Amino acid sequence: MEQFGVIGLAVMGKNLALNIHSRGYSVAGFSIDKPEVDALAKYQDDKLKPTYTWEEFVNSLEKPRKILIMIKAGKPVDMTLDKLKDLLEPGDIVIDGGNSNFHDTQRRFEELGKYGIHFIGMGVSGGEEGALHGPALMPGGDKEAFEKVRPILEAIAAKTEDGRPCVSYIGPESSGHYVKMVHNGIEYAIMQEVSEVYDLLRTVSGKSNEEMSEIFGKWYQGDLHAYLIEITSKVLQQKDDLTSDYVIDHILNVASYKGTGNWMLEDGVALGAPISVIAEAVIGRFMSKQTTREGSAPKFDGQAPADLVENLEKALNLAQAVAYAQGFQQLTMAAEAYKWELRYQSIAQNWEAGCIIRSNMLQDIEKAYDENGKLQVLFQAPYFKSLMEKNLPALRAVVKLAADAGIPTPTLSASLNYLESIFNPNLPANMIQGQRDYFGAHTYYRNDREGVFHTEWYEEK
Amino acid sequence: MEQFGVIGLAVMGKNLALNIHSRGYSVAGFSIDKPEVDALAKYQDDKLKPTYTWEEFVNSLEKPRKILIMIKAGKPVDMTLDKLKDLLEPGDIVIDGGNSNFHDTQRRFEELGKYGIHFIGMGVSGGEEGALHGPALMPGGDKEAFEKVRPILEAIAAKTEDGRPCVSYIGPESSGHYVKMVHNGIEYAIMQEVSEVYDLLRTVSGKSNEEMSEIFGKWYQGDLHAYLIEITSKVLQQKDDLTSDYVIDHILNVASYKGTGNWMLEDGVALGAPISVIAEAVIGRFMSKQTTREGSAPKFDGQAPADLVENLEKALNLAQAVAYAQGFQQLTMAAEAYKWELRYQSIAQNWEAGCIIRSNMLQDIEKAYDENGKLQVLFQAPYFKSLMEKNLPALRAVVKLAADAGIPTPTLSASLNYLESIFNPNLPANMIQGQRDYFGAHTYYRNDREGVFHTEWYEEK
Repeated sequence: MEQFGVIGLAVMGKNLALNIHSRGYSVAGFSIDKPEVDALAKYQDDKLKPTYTWEEFVNSLEKPRKILIMIKAGKPVDMTLDKLKDLLEPGDIVIDGGNSNFHDTQRRFEELGKYGIHFIGMGVSGGEEGALHGPALMPGGDKEAFEKVRPILEAIAAKTEDGRPCVSYIGPESSGHYVKMVHNGIEYAIMQEVSEVYDLLRTVSGKSNEEMSEIFGKWYQGDLHAYLIEITSKVLQQKDDLTSDYVIDHILNVASYKGTGNWMLEDGVALGAPISVIAEAVIGRFMSKQTTREGSAPKFDGQAPADLVENLEKALNLAQAVAYAQGFQQLTMAAEAYKWELRYQSIAQNWEAGCIIRSNMLQDIEKAYDENGKLQVLFQAPYFKSLMEKNLPALRAVVKLAADAGIPTPTLSASLNYLESIFNPNLPANMIQGQRDYFGAHTYYRNDREGVFHTEWYEEK
Repeated sequence: MEQFGVIGLAVMGKNLALNIHSRGYSVAGFSIDKPEVDALAKYQDDKLKPTYTWEEFVNSLEKPRKILIMIKAGKPVDMTLDKLKDLLEPGDIVIDGGNSNFHDTQRRFEELGKYGIHFIGMGVSGGEEGALHGPALMPGGDKEAFEKVRPILEAIAAKTEDGRPCVSYIGPESSGHYVKMVHNGIEYAIMQEVSEVYDLLRTVSGKSNEEMSEIFGKWYQGDLHAYLIEITSKVLQQKDDLTSDYVIDHILNVASYKGTGNWMLEDGVALGAPISVIAEAVIGRFMSKQTTREGSAPKFDGQAPADLVENLEKALNLAQAVAYAQGFQQLTMAAEAYKWELRYQSIAQNWEAGCIIRSNMLQDIEKAYDENGKLQVLFQAPYFKSLMEKNLPALRAVVKLAADAGIPTPTLSASLNYLESIFNPNLPANMIQGQRDYFGAHTYYRNDREGVFHTEWYEEK
C-alpha cells in the first residue's frame, strides 16, 4: 500500500510525485491521460506505483487515504472530486494543489465535508523546478487533516535560510487558496514595479542590457535580495537563439495573465481593501494589450541624475515593501470578513523560499508579525516605518523624474500615493462627502460631534 | 385609465410621477408603503391617481401598460417583478429605474421575456431635483418597447443646451443599467480628482475656503463648465449651521459609497479594461476609511509656484477627460464582449444635462463619436488629442508638485500614467513576459516574427 497518491501527472504533478518519492515516501500516481502515467512509469520502483484506473489508484492507498490533485483549475477539479467522492471513505484527505479560485474551494470544502472527506485547498508556488526540489506550500482546511499530511508536506517543501519548511497550516476553509491568490497579486505588483524601473534605466540613463543586468545583479546582492530581481538580471543578459541580439529586445511587450491577480483585485474591491498597487499592476497588463499603442516612444533629452541608479534601488525596495504590505492588508481584512484566524508570520515564512515572491524582506515581515500579530499595516512595524522614512525621498524623486521623462510608472506612483495616504489624517474625502450631500442628500459625519448630518445647501434648489 | 404607472413613491418615485404628470400625462402611483401613497394623494387630480393595491394599480392602466419601478435595488425589485408577472399581460412594459446591478437586469430581462413582458433597465441620474424637473435617463432593452415609452421619457428628461432630450435608446438587454454604472464610475473618478485639487490648493498655496470657492467658480465659467465643479464652489462657501465656520472644515474626511463605482471596476477587470483612474477613485474611498490615518498631516514649506492655479485648472480639465475616456473605453469593450450595439454619441448626449457628470466637455465627446463612432480611445479624436498635448505639461507639473509636497494624488497620477501609456509603443511589458517565461515557461510572442516562443534560459536550473 502506498502512503500518498497524486492525481494529474503533467509536469507539476509528476515533479511533486517525484519529490515526495525522493523523500522516502511511497507514492501512487494516476491520470486520466494515459501517456502521463506512462511517463511516470519510467521512474517506477517499489515506492513509486503508476496506476491506470481510478479504482486501482484508490485501492492502492493506505487509509486514511492522502491524495493530491494537480490538474487544471475549474471544471476538471469538480469532475475529479465527483468521481472520488464515490470511491473514498470518511476520514480520507483530498488536497487540491491547483490554482483554484477560493470561492470554488469554499464550495468544495463544504460539499466534501458532507461525505466526511477532508478537503484541503493548497496553494503551490515555485513552478516546475520548485515542484521537484522544494515548492512553497499554502494549505488551508481542517487543522486535524493537515496534521496527518504535515510530515510529507514538510519533507517536500522548500526550506527557509534557517532550515524551517515553507509550509504551515494557513487557516480554515478556503484560506490556503486565498493566500496563494494574494501571493500571485503581489507577484503581479513586483513584476510591474521591476518593469517600470527597467524602463527608466534604459530610457533615462540609456543603459545597455548588459549594464542593466549588472545593476539588477548588484541589487540582488544587497537589500533587494529577491528571486524576481535575480531573474531580471538573468533575463537581461540572455542572448537570443534566433538573432545575435539580447532576447529581451525581441520579446513582444504585451503581457499575458491567467487571472489570479485579477481575482485578488476583485475580492479586494469586495472587501474595501486599499490595494492600489495590485490594481495598477493588473491594469498595467490590460494596458499593454491596447492596440492604440502606436504613437512615438518617450525620449529623455535631459541629463540622467547622478543618483539615478541609487534612487531606483531605494524606490524599488520601498515599492516592493508596499506590494507585500497591500497583500498582507488584504489578508487581514479577509481574515476579519471571513472569520479566519490567519497567522501572518507563518504566511511570510511560507513565502521565504521556493516561491516566486521569495525575498529577504519576507524575513523582516515574519519578524514584524511575530512581534505584533495585530498590525493593520506593515508600515506600523519599526523596521518598515524606518524603511519608509529612509527611502521615501528616493521614491518621490523617481516619480518626478518619470513625469519629466514621460515614462509611465503606474505602480511606483501608486506606491508613493499609498504611503502618502495610509497615515495621513488630512485626506480630502470631506470634499467628496460634501458633494454627495449636496447632490444626493447622502448625509455626512462630522469631525467635531457625533451623529449624522445633512446641510440645507443655500443654492441646492 | 391612466397612461403611465409608477411603483415606489419615495422621493425619487414621487418626483418622477409628479414630473410625468406635469407634462400632461395621466399617472397612477402605487407603493406597498401606504404613507407614501398618502403623500402622493395630496397632489391628486383627474390625471394623478394614488392606488392602494396591486390590482387597483394594474387595472387602472391603459394597455399595453407602462410601469416604472423606483424602489431599492436588489431583492425588492425581484419581489415586485414576481408579483407583477402574475398580473400583467404580454406586451406590457416594465421599466426598472433603480440603481440595479446590470447582471440582475440581464437575468430579469430574460426571465420576463418568457412571459412576453418587455423589461427596460433604465439608469436615472440627477437626484431628487433632477427627478422632479429633468433627469438624465439611460434606457436599455427592447427597442420596440422603448419606442412606446419614448414620448413620455423625452417629455420628462433634462434637455441639452440646444434643446434635445437627455434620453435615447442605449441598446439591448441590460445595457441601460450598464451605462448608468459607468456614469457612476466616472462620477467617482471626477469627484476624487476634484478632492485632490482641493487638497493641493489648500495645502500648497494655503488658499482659504472662500478663495478656493472663487477659484472653482471661475473655472466653472471657463473650460471646466461642469456640475461637479459648480457644486464644489458652493460646498466651499457654505457656512455651517452648528458653528460659525465653513461646513467643509467639519465634514469628516471618510468617504462613503453605495458601490456602483465598485461594480464598474469589477466588470472592468473582467473585460480587461484599462480603467486605472476609476480603480484609484474606488480605492481612494477605501483608503479614506483606514483607521491607521493618525500620523502627521503633510505640510508644504516651499513657495507655491506662481502658475499653480492655472496648472491645476489645466490638469483637472485633462484628468476629467481621462475619466470620461476610460468610461467610454469600458463601454466600447463591453459592447464587443456582450454584443451590444451602443451609440456613444447618444450616451454623451444623454449625459449633457440632468446628471451628476454633466459638463460642456460632453458636447465635445458627442462630437468626437459623431465624427467617428469607432474610436477606441477618446484621445484619438482631434479635439482631445490637442487637449492632451496642450495640458499634459500642467498635469506633469502638478504630479511633481504633489510629490514634493507629500500630497497623495492617486487619480491625477493615474490620469498622467494613462496618457503616457495609451499611445506608447514602448511599454516595458517585455520584461514581464521574459520573467514569466523564465519562472513558469509561460512562453512569449516576439516583435520580429510570428509564433509562440520559449527560451531555454541559461541558468534556469
